[in-house]
Amino acid sequence: MSGIPVLADSVRITADAVEILDRRVYPFEVRWVRCATSEEVAQAIERMVTQSSGPLFAATAGLVLAAREARRDPPRVAFARLRKAGDRLIATRPTNNHIRDAVQGVLEAVLDGNGGLPATGEELVEAVTEAARAHDAAYRARSAALGRHAAGLLGDGARVLTHCWADAFLIATVQAAQEAGKHLEFVCTETRPYLQGARLTAATLVEMGYRPTLITDGMVATALADGLADVALTAADRVTLDGHVVNKVGTLGVALAANAFGVPYHALIDAPDPQARTIDDVVIERRDGDEVLHVLGRRTAAEGVTGYYPAFDATPPRLVTSIVTEHGVYEPSRVRDHFAVPHHPEES
Amino acid sequence: MSGIPVLADSVRITADAVEILDRRVYPFEVRWVRCATSEEVAQAIERMVTQSSGPLFAATAGLVLAAREARRDPPRVAFARLRKAGDRLIATRPTNNHIRDAVQGVLEAVLDGNGGLPATGEELVEAVTEAARAHDAAYRARSAALGRHAAGLLGDGARVLTHCWADAFLIATVQAAQEAGKHLEFVCTETRPYLQGARLTAATLVEMGYRPTLITDGMVATALADGLADVALTAADRVTLDGHVVNKVGTLGVALAANAFGVPYHALIDAPDPQARTIDDVVIERRDGDEVLHVLGRRTAAEGVTGYYPAFDATPPRLVTSIVTEHGVYEPSRVRDHFAVPHHPEES
Repeated sequence: MSGIPVLADSVRITADAVEILDRRVYPFEVRWVRCATSEEVAQAIERMVTQSSGPLFAATAGLVLAAREARRDPPRVAFARLRKAGDRLIATRPTNNHIRDAVQGVLEAVLDGNGGLPATGEELVEAVTEAARAHDAAYRARSAALGRHAAGLLGDGARVLTHCWADAFLIATVQAAQEAGKHLEFVCTETRPYLQGARLTAATLVEMGYRPTLITDGMVATALADGLADVALTAADRVTLDGHVVNKVGTLGVALAANAFGVPYHALIDAPDPQARTIDDVVIERRDGDEVLHVLGRRTAAEGVTGYYPAFDATPPRLVTSIVTEHGVYEPSRVRDHFAVPHHPEES
Repeated sequence: MSGIPVLADSVRITADAVEILDRRVYPFEVRWVRCATSEEVAQAIERMVTQSSGPLFAATAGLVLAAREARRDPPRVAFARLRKAGDRLIATRPTNNHIRDAVQGVLEAVLDGNGGLPATGEELVEAVTEAARAHDAAYRARSAALGRHAAGLLGDGARVLTHCWADAFLIATVQAAQEAGKHLEFVCTETRPYLQGARLTAATLVEMGYRPTLITDGMVATALADGLADVALTAADRVTLDGHVVNKVGTLGVALAANAFGVPYHALIDAPDPQARTIDDVVIERRDGDEVLHVLGRRTAAEGVTGYYPAFDATPPRLVTSIVTEHGVYEPSRVRDHFAVPHHPEES
């Protein structure tokens, strides 16, 4: 068994700031970006200092900074500032619903049963700090539950193709497989333009004791046709109630290839989004096309071209074998059943 | 109309060497690699100084050097050395049949009608030089014919998605479309690990008057799902008689996505390979996996990973709309009909 991977704990709240591990350069450099204000946290998220599960932790930490900024204000003024900071954080990246849910969860948690606020700005800081800690812990617990369900889908010796960086969901899945004594192998896509697969997934799997095989994003179809993997596994940034999987651009190509060559494709997410009934309810973030023209800051494209960068894509339910949530494994058409579990305790 | 693109003339025979434009760094640097011997030409091909149509021209030029190296030998000795140099050139890269056919074509052309050799080593040099020039010219003529057929498949205003660098076939297609007054737009994949799309295709299309859109290799499926292109077009390195298209790795993913989203996919090749009845007759080159771990020489992957680099993939006929050769446009299942044209002049 290995220790906690570096990327599993990559947002720190200090006495006067939030420090975020810079995933744009990890593992080549281990650099922490210091954010003194909630606005600086928002900018760090926009600039991809952290991504995948990172923005969730950055958002709850950003709210702690926002509460500190308002500590001398009367509670109602402080709460209004907190809400505004939350809106700013939510606006950073629209596709994944973690930030939205984190902000909403923390704001609700600081109110008492009657919707009342703490008596002072100082008490609000304490309440937000505790709510942030609890939200982070709940997410880790949901990820661990998801990981146990996902590991159940992997046979001993399974060769897993993964795309981009599934972060807490992948770490939890691997930990659960290791606890069950299962041997695994990994094929990672490099995941241009940010190379999350080549850097973050690969480095973390190496930390966890594996020696992953790396392919370029264009090799997925031939890798699956050649039998290099038995299963494809990615995170999802959002799952709609009708079973669409929204994830890092390239996932659709993985799913098409898996479907064509008879390889199951499973998507990991703590929960589907109850606010997204169909794919039309999800905003696909379009990032600056210049990212496509560079690798790690170096120009890689000829002059005169324009980059196109949809950061995510949507995979239709027909291409998804199962969606794994904290509650279990669902066929995409039945993913609403996820919500049946906690709301019907009498069935258990 | 634009002039001749730089990459259309990227192998030069000088008085004492062959100079090959280094496509590993173009267009960021315009550097010519000087090869003093046919062995150095072979090494340059192996090391990817040139690729796509480039190795054909390099191979015929390499034979000229081999003939010069043997100019003081008796003709039979010289011809044996030439044949050995040809075998060495053929061994450089196994998947594309251009080098094999170029060597075979030049060697056959220097023999007289009775299989006799030129009288002296010096005359052999002259014969090889002329045969190399003729082989190159014939290839350019075949490409031009292919281009006219391919341009006929493109409507005015067509938005063309292309993968890797289709070289002479793409240039000829664009020239034919321009001559027909057709407006085109282009989406290019960057084509990791060598970035042929981001560098060679993009630079050449800019030279020819376009402003291509660049995507990463993982964006093909979503680009086609989003309606970014009307047609997918690639070269083929080899087409088998049963209609398989062997081309740069990633082509299979392009074809799968095109098929899934109702976009026609056309493959361009001067001729199918009569020596490849099925895909089992084609060797798929596996290159050094370290290429996948770097971009333009810079490490991009975490330590501890292993790269996997199949340089080509095979697209089955069911995913190919048509194969365009110098003789016309064929459904993959009918690609053998290509050979019917020249052998049945009475039908025309």
